[in-house]
Amino acid sequence: MKSYRIGVLTSGGDCPGLNAAIRAVVCAAGLLGWEVYGFIDGFEGLISPVRYQILHEEDTQGIISLGGTILGTTNRGRFTTKTGIGEVKRLPGHLIDEVKETLEGLGIGALICIGGDGSLTAAQQLYESGVPIVGVPKTIDNDLSATDYTFGFYSAVEYVCRSLDRLRTTAASHRRVMVVEVMGRYTGWIALYGGLSGGANLILIPEIPFEYSKIAYQVRKRIAEGNFQTMIVVAEGAHPKDGQYYVVEEGKSATAEIRLGGISRHLEKVIHLMTGQEVRAVILGHLQRGGEPTAFDRNLGMMFGAAAVGLVREKRFGYMVSYREGKIGAVLIQEAIRELKKVDVNCPEIKTARAMGISFGEE
Amino acid sequence: MKSYRIGVLTSGGDCPGLNAAIRAVVCAAGLLGWEVYGFIDGFEGLISPVRYQILHEEDTQGIISLGGTILGTTNRGRFTTKTGIGEVKRLPGHLIDEVKETLEGLGIGALICIGGDGSLTAAQQLYESGVPIVGVPKTIDNDLSATDYTFGFYSAVEYVCRSLDRLRTTAASHRRVMVVEVMGRYTGWIALYGGLSGGANLILIPEIPFEYSKIAYQVRKRIAEGNFQTMIVVAEGAHPKDGQYYVVEEGKSATAEIRLGGISRHLEKVIHLMTGQEVRAVILGHLQRGGEPTAFDRNLGMMFGAAAVGLVREKRFGYMVSYREGKIGAVLIQEAIRELKKVDVNCPEIKTARAMGISFGEE
Amino acid sequence: MKSYRIGVLTSGGDCPGLNAAIRAVVCAAGLLGWEVYGFIDGFEGLISPVRYQILHEEDTQGIISLGGTILGTTNRGRFTTKTGIGEVKRLPGHLIDEVKETLEGLGIGALICIGGDGSLTAAQQLYESGVPIVGVPKTIDNDLSATDYTFGFYSAVEYVCRSLDRLRTTAASHRRVMVVEVMGRYTGWIALYGGLSGGANLILIPEIPFEYSKIAYQVRKRIAEGNFQTMIVVAEGAHPKDGQYYVVEEGKSATAEIRLGGISRHLEKVIHLMTGQEVRAVILGHLQRGGEPTAFDRNLGMMFGAAAVGLVREKRFGYMVSYREGKIGAVLIQEAIRELKKVDVNCPEIKTARAMGISFGEE
Amino acid sequence: MKSYRIGVLTSGGDCPGLNAAIRAVVCAAGLLGWEVYGFIDGFEGLISPVRYQILHEEDTQGIISLGGTILGTTNRGRFTTKTGIGEVKRLPGHLIDEVKETLEGLGIGALICIGGDGSLTAAQQLYESGVPIVGVPKTIDNDLSATDYTFGFYSAVEYVCRSLDRLRTTAASHRRVMVVEVMGRYTGWIALYGGLSGGANLILIPEIPFEYSKIAYQVRKRIAEGNFQTMIVVAEGAHPKDGQYYVVEEGKSATAEIRLGGISRHLEKVIHLMTGQEVRAVILGHLQRGGEPTAFDRNLGMMFGAAAVGLVREKRFGYMVSYREGKIGAVLIQEAIRELKKVDVNCPEIKTARAMGISFGEE
Repeated sequence: MKSYRIGVLTSGGDCPGLNAAIRAVVCAAGLLGWEVYGFIDGFEGLISPVRYQILHEEDTQGIISLGGTILGTTNRGRFTTKTGIGEVKRLPGHLIDEVKETLEGLGIGALICIGGDGSLTAAQQLYESGVPIVGVPKTIDNDLSATDYTFGFYSAVEYVCRSLDRLRTTAASHRRVMVVEVMGRYTGWIALYGGLSGGANLILIPEIPFEYSKIAYQVRKRIAEGNFQTMIVVAEGAHPKDGQYYVVEEGKSATAEIRLGGISRHLEKVIHLMTGQEVRAVILGHLQRGGEPTAFDRNLGMMFGAAAVGLVREKRFGYMVSYREGKIGAVLIQEAIRELKKVDVNCPEIKTARAMGISFGEE
Repeated sequence: MKSYRIGVLTSGGDCPGLNAAIRAVVCAAGLLGWEVYGFIDGFEGLISPVRYQILHEEDTQGIISLGGTILGTTNRGRFTTKTGIGEVKRLPGHLIDEVKETLEGLGIGALICIGGDGSLTAAQQLYESGVPIVGVPKTIDNDLSATDYTFGFYSAVEYVCRSLDRLRTTAASHRRVMVVEVMGRYTGWIALYGGLSGGANLILIPEIPFEYSKIAYQVRKRIAEGNFQTMIVVAEGAHPKDGQYYVVEEGKSATAEIRLGGISRHLEKVIHLMTGQEVRAVILGHLQRGGEPTAFDRNLGMMFGAAAVGLVREKRFGYMVSYREGKIGAVLIQEAIRELKKVDVNCPEIKTARAMGISFGEE
Repeated sequence: MKSYRIGVLTSGGDCPGLNAAIRAVVCAAGLLGWEVYGFIDGFEGLISPVRYQILHEEDTQGIISLGGTILGTTNRGRFTTKTGIGEVKRLPGHLIDEVKETLEGLGIGALICIGGDGSLTAAQQLYESGVPIVGVPKTIDNDLSATDYTFGFYSAVEYVCRSLDRLRTTAASHRRVMVVEVMGRYTGWIALYGGLSGGANLILIPEIPFEYSKIAYQVRKRIAEGNFQTMIVVAEGAHPKDGQYYVVEEGKSATAEIRLGGISRHLEKVIHLMTGQEVRAVILGHLQRGGEPTAFDRNLGMMFGAAAVGLVREKRFGYMVSYREGKIGAVLIQEAIRELKKVDVNCPEIKTARAMGISFGEE
Repeated sequence: MKSYRIGVLTSGGDCPGLNAAIRAVVCAAGLLGWEVYGFIDGFEGLISPVRYQILHEEDTQGIISLGGTILGTTNRGRFTTKTGIGEVKRLPGHLIDEVKETLEGLGIGALICIGGDGSLTAAQQLYESGVPIVGVPKTIDNDLSATDYTFGFYSAVEYVCRSLDRLRTTAASHRRVMVVEVMGRYTGWIALYGGLSGGANLILIPEIPFEYSKIAYQVRKRIAEGNFQTMIVVAEGAHPKDGQYYVVEEGKSATAEIRLGGISRHLEKVIHLMTGQEVRAVILGHLQRGGEPTAFDRNLGMMFGAAAVGLVREKRFGYMVSYREGKIGAVLIQEAIRELKKVDVNCPEIKTARAMGISFGEE
């Protein structure tokens, strides 16, 4: 008979590495003689109709190379706590009660919640109401300040990098400007790492608002130097400098156009108008979230999953695992969810890009 | 001293396999003691300012794995002959004269033109005016009736297949409907081969107009059977049956909406409205043209390139190489450019898909 | 209640595409309202202890991208019929009786056997004893004369092609000769298709015995032309011409050395001794069998699986599905297993390779 | 006219990321208005016959995705300084003089040497003799103590990880034990990172000598638990514990057999004898060195290349760039080459593996 029983769930947008984390939880708990219940579709599986499956080591053989999550997930539904930047909603008391009843009813001693900012906010509220919870951070955007890296990020970067390789030969053959839009509503991590590794000539990120004239200047300068193709990577949240102004059409503002059609379609039009070059926009979209995790993300996922079991063992509830300077540690969930980690404009990647003449659209 | 001199160029949209074809031309010509001039940017390189590079076997080492074309290409410019379906423009006489002067001036005895329907139409006109020309077919859409396969097609299919793999885990984790738009304005080859291999549940192609209600029925049926994700592959030229009618918004027609925003964005909205499911559209776009060619496309490109040199040797000008039932042959360019090869609804891929319960949106 | 029940099994060495075939069988049978029993570990699952699982469409979601076979397989055991080239063993009567009892006991009306030459020989013997059996050919080596292609082959070719890409940059950086050993004990299909697509300079296959001096000549000739790296692909069954003779060591013959250490290790030593160049041998081995099937192999697997269900429906037992000139058909198993399909030295791939100056070690 | 001229070379075994480093050197130097000479085949290009090419930014477009080094390299020749562990040879004075003459003759103010332990030892000797040299570390094995990571390492890990994915489906289908031999003569970094991410059940590294009985125990235990396949990753330098003893054949020792045929072939035989299971050995060999660098390695290569130009600018000769805790810094070459960085048995990867029940052959 198993001595102890824990639950695990995945919540929020899916990303590569979730299954590696689940496998590590199952293996590490199994080695301690514990039983693991996997709840289906995030916190939703904890409330009526309660849905879960008992996870055995054999069930998780071979899932480490699989994208997504075998437990299902959702970024909508009744446990949504973040409705905009900064705004936090309290979970209704009856939901919290129901979660507690479910866990008690099933004899579950602790819950491991693998999720992003919003899900960890819900986890923190549950913890404050007495649910013995441990967190595992998950954000493909790598924008959690409490940890150097989260799994999923490097898989997305790798995909961006390889996509730029694909597009570069087409751009070169046709002498085109390619505008490649990648994830990153508030931060430019994926654009920066993916653009640098993929050979981008311009990288536009939310942290560094751009000027239209500087982009056009770079394209023209490249042509003058005999480089007929230009690769531009743009984070979905990149935007022009305040006061920057590009007349799109009478009665329309650039901001409105970006909001409606996306930044890459906007730049496709503007750069063509300003330089006369053939420009093509490509939006990587959901392709960045899927696929097999890289070795880095699998290992990070497993280190996080195994460490979460360790926190449960030590009864350090309310904590979240983290990765800092090559070491696995733990931070209070409460502190982890406070702040967005933005790209530091003095980080080695930015400094390297600048030293190599890669433009951020401001110089 | 080289005994003979030939020219080679690539024209029209780029695709994987062009460089393999170029390498084969260079190697096969080199073995015969011939010299090869590669003209830059398609036919444009033949007219003032004339641009070319002399190609040696060493220059083409390692290019077989490279997407695009080392010679550059264009699908615009002065040699455009097809301006719409069926409409053909005659090349102006002075252009033809200039091409002949360039070839004579450089002492080039024959020209190998690697190109699609439009470029081969220009090639045919040049041939009729006395230019000793040999064609190599190139169309990523595989819609040339004179040949079973063209290189680039299977590389695009492979990319579609792997992209569906990436998206399937996300769709499953989130219980979503994914609508993946692929190339194919007039024919559904890429959608059919890519969709079948990538595990699509519905495949929508121009050859089989769809009904909205049948698509919604399939999504609902799958949910009823416990399959919460549905993968839909749609060719960019797919469209509803005549008379089919979906009220989009007062004063807007479905046709107009498809023309403006694309078929996948349209279906994203319609399927959500009809089924209530989360739907996400992904447009693969230019990513399908790039990247490393598959082994199949490299070999096809090399077989075509070497065979083209054979045609030059036999002075069979006005011919184009072709691949039929596992054999390399030749057809008159004139005949090759006549007809679009549409998906035969009795081909084994369609029959297999139907036998497996994959829907084409009409049943 | 299901109206009919069929069995399916995979037998012999695994290869990519088996799961696509299984999925097609399950979907196509399901659409007809049939039930499918999947027997475990090939024919072994049919005899005591009988092992099977009932396969539902949902069980086969997402397996099309998976290498190997979810049913397990074996190329050893009690149903082995081929013990060497040409030698065929009769299955003992009690085994055949047991198979028939199992099928009757479970109410199974027909059995689909997915297997290679050896497994189909066993299938034919079972058929002759009254078992209603239908075959699906499977050989990664593509050496069955009854079908143009078998699934698994192009996935192996793709892997060989990409491995040559990996090794070429190392070879070029270090100015080395690389000898890459690939599958193909009796035929050179993988070496030919993989070598051509991967940019090999020499391709050594069983069908064309080589001369040591010709190999050394090619390496030296390349160096003289400024090509310091040479890529050699060798099928495991390639061998020198009769009478060819290379003194390895006193008291040792070349043949014995090849048999013991493999052809690539042998050539590594010989080429180094004859040319003074750095030579490195790489054996791709089991890596060629695994991994995700290419789109081509997935589609071929599904076409075969669906067609096999069609044969069952038409009660054409004793037949095997086949693919010829783009069409799916059927041949008698009895005829299919008769002959090995060797590389035709006049096929377009060989002709292209020769036209490009790629050597087969004989000229 | 360019104001300043520097040289760059790559030396030692090739690895993915070298070209990214070269590109960064060229771009960063170009932005400062400097000229860059790339010497061919490592230090060999500096001595008679002197061989170099002037590198322009355009020459390095698109090389970041290319394996190997466009400058060529060698791990043999006249600049070899390390002949075994610990033994260091002094470069002869005339060689050093010739290098100095070459640099003076070409007007080169500084030399950037991208190389491993041996090459950096030569670089240090040149520096001590007055050559203005800056180092960039390169070791695919990641065993340099002065830097947390070197480029090439994660590309090799990724390859090992994906190869295990390929082999796992075959192992599972056939119920086999797979022994996969990876690089790592003195350290187990690749085996550890690659094995963990690839789902290995046992990881054997030089830092943790194994016991035969413990390996056999794990295989048997897995079978007892219903896991019929076992994946074993073994570093080429892994070895049994002292005193461990396995009778191979009369008159032969295990040590001799390992030395001759390699550790994986040895374990293939031993594990089969001890457990009766089918075992297959696969040696990844040179495939691990080649191919496209991962995004991580490209970025690390570029950060190192750009930082090396920074060191030249600051005239910090005798220094080598390094990467520690997310920051790019510099260390004295002299100190960097002192010590091998071995796997710390308390690192998070080992702790995670142990927590998950992955065995190192000692428990």
